[in-house]
Amino acid sequence: MNLLEKTLASISDIDANAVDLAQERLDSLTKPPGSLGVLEDIVKQLAGITGQSIPEIGKKTVIIMAADHGVVEEGVSAFPQEVTPQMVMNFLNGGAAINVLARHAGADITCCDIGMVSDIEHPMLIMKKIRRGTANMATGPAMERKEAIAAIEAGIEVAYKEIDKGSTILATGEMGIGNTTASSAILAAFSRRNASEVVGRGTGLDNKALALKATVIEKALDINKPNPDDPLDVLHKVGGLEIAGLAGVILAAASRKVPVVIDGFISTAAALVAGRLEPKSVQYMIASHVSEEPGHKMMLDILGLHPMLYMRMRLGEGTGAVLALNIIEAAAHIPAEMATFESAGVSRGL
Amino acid sequence: MNLLEKTLASISDIDANAVDLAQERLDSLTKPPGSLGVLEDIVKQLAGITGQSIPEIGKKTVIIMAADHGVVEEGVSAFPQEVTPQMVMNFLNGGAAINVLARHAGADITCCDIGMVSDIEHPMLIMKKIRRGTANMATGPAMERKEAIAAIEAGIEVAYKEIDKGSTILATGEMGIGNTTASSAILAAFSRRNASEVVGRGTGLDNKALALKATVIEKALDINKPNPDDPLDVLHKVGGLEIAGLAGVILAAASRKVPVVIDGFISTAAALVAGRLEPKSVQYMIASHVSEEPGHKMMLDILGLHPMLYMRMRLGEGTGAVLALNIIEAAAHIPAEMATFESAGVSRGL
Repeated sequence: MNLLEKTLASISDIDANAVDLAQERLDSLTKPPGSLGVLEDIVKQLAGITGQSIPEIGKKTVIIMAADHGVVEEGVSAFPQEVTPQMVMNFLNGGAAINVLARHAGADITCCDIGMVSDIEHPMLIMKKIRRGTANMATGPAMERKEAIAAIEAGIEVAYKEIDKGSTILATGEMGIGNTTASSAILAAFSRRNASEVVGRGTGLDNKALALKATVIEKALDINKPNPDDPLDVLHKVGGLEIAGLAGVILAAASRKVPVVIDGFISTAAALVAGRLEPKSVQYMIASHVSEEPGHKMMLDILGLHPMLYMRMRLGEGTGAVLALNIIEAAAHIPAEMATFESAGVSRGL
Repeated sequence: MNLLEKTLASISDIDANAVDLAQERLDSLTKPPGSLGVLEDIVKQLAGITGQSIPEIGKKTVIIMAADHGVVEEGVSAFPQEVTPQMVMNFLNGGAAINVLARHAGADITCCDIGMVSDIEHPMLIMKKIRRGTANMATGPAMERKEAIAAIEAGIEVAYKEIDKGSTILATGEMGIGNTTASSAILAAFSRRNASEVVGRGTGLDNKALALKATVIEKALDINKPNPDDPLDVLHKVGGLEIAGLAGVILAAASRKVPVVIDGFISTAAALVAGRLEPKSVQYMIASHVSEEPGHKMMLDILGLHPMLYMRMRLGEGTGAVLALNIIEAAAHIPAEMATFESAGVSRGL
């Protein structure tokens, strides 16, 4: 078995007994049963993932995967391709939105070049370049099937390393000019929808460019005919290297029983791939926000995930996921710190 | 002029120039324009409120107003009235959900008895008891008009004191068995809707009790005939003392140019009253979450406020507001800490 097969085989259901114990604990606390809503859902999910009925959040890490997309030559992005390495350098130097929000959340950032066209030099950049950007999916497959597998396995390795170094919760992030086009194509392939239904403005397309983007995706689907029942076929034909890498991160988290917070549209495309490769992996995913990209909500619905933040964000990088980290951490304090009806002398419901 | 009149007269529009400067700053940062969505809206609002184009969040305080409701004798709550003082004692002892979440957000809690039936002794409890609970609004006015004014003024005093002690952002919270009934009645009165459209399960009513609650509210509206064009008429006839107090807190914040984060259904009823007394006060309000109480979204829509958190919470206490405090603080770091396109050497859009 290769690393991907081994990882998939090692993913099991979350611990139902720990979920029950967490529910019991929650119902003993001084609040109407269920009244903390999603916070209680998070506590139960964390309990099931970690096996602790009073779960703890420890070291938080955002893993950012960066790669380029050959399809940008079709004119599908509002920003030039050179912005991918420029923004990765910005991440490494601490000046991007993800840096600001991760610092505020107390989360570390790990940044990986899994397929940028250019090379950049930085001591903190993890090099896992599978190839220099994908090929233009409008004229053929974005990459070879074995490259998609290699990119997933690179993501698994990066995540395993972070977990080995002590991370107990992961968040996904990405950078890649053109990657909403690949994510829309993945959604269209899996959901058998038309490109025009799943396409969005990305970083800021106008109506004309939006129509072009839909046409390009339709062309990519026509030429490549990705098989929706074969996630690796979809991934290598119309996906991206950072999307493959993040699918690996998510699968690695599930395999090691570590919760993984899913960011926006591109991260959720990776979650879709991971969920198709091993449906049990979805039990380890926590949705963060719903973005302005119209396909994002469709993806979350397919996965059965419920976002907690409605921020009209459309930046990616992991920005929505780290905002949610703080709420997840707040939830984890509830069973540990709240008084019970008995300890506080509070009367129960009538 | 009395304190209420003085406070209302001192509320002015937020600083449009500071909003423009904040917008300019946001557009210079390394992200597609507007891509941080609500985070950018928050930055601009904070700039407008404080007059600083790079706003700072300083000392955060949740003000919890507690009071009782005579209408509970109609059987409209899932919990007995004794829970109001029991939970206030829980707040003062640090064991409630609001304590856990406020600690996590780095916010202080100030707790005020503005009208509980029982007395409790605690050095940290602020005593502003206007009366021992409201009268049963199903048989007559909940309180006298002058008592409603006194309760608003008590809220203004509590908020002014916190601001004088250094608080630079306030959040609203409340405790009062029966207060979703009063809040629903306020919404019905202002929106001219039927009780059955605005009523919800509160802390956990079954279908039968829910129908009873709607009947009780309809009876209260029939007997009292609150005038929707006179907010004090609505407040004293079908409101509550903690709702009046929170309306005062909100008006005080607006008067001192301090942002105020609005919690759930009851807090938003107070925001409705404040907004009717002085529409400019809405510019100082930041909506936090949308609760399970169906009327909450209706209230937010009336105010034109957009909640950021969808957590299916229905606890009150200020729990949703303090979760939002963290996000507001994250937003405030953006203009101060992010690199610009120039400083990071990142290319702008095509």
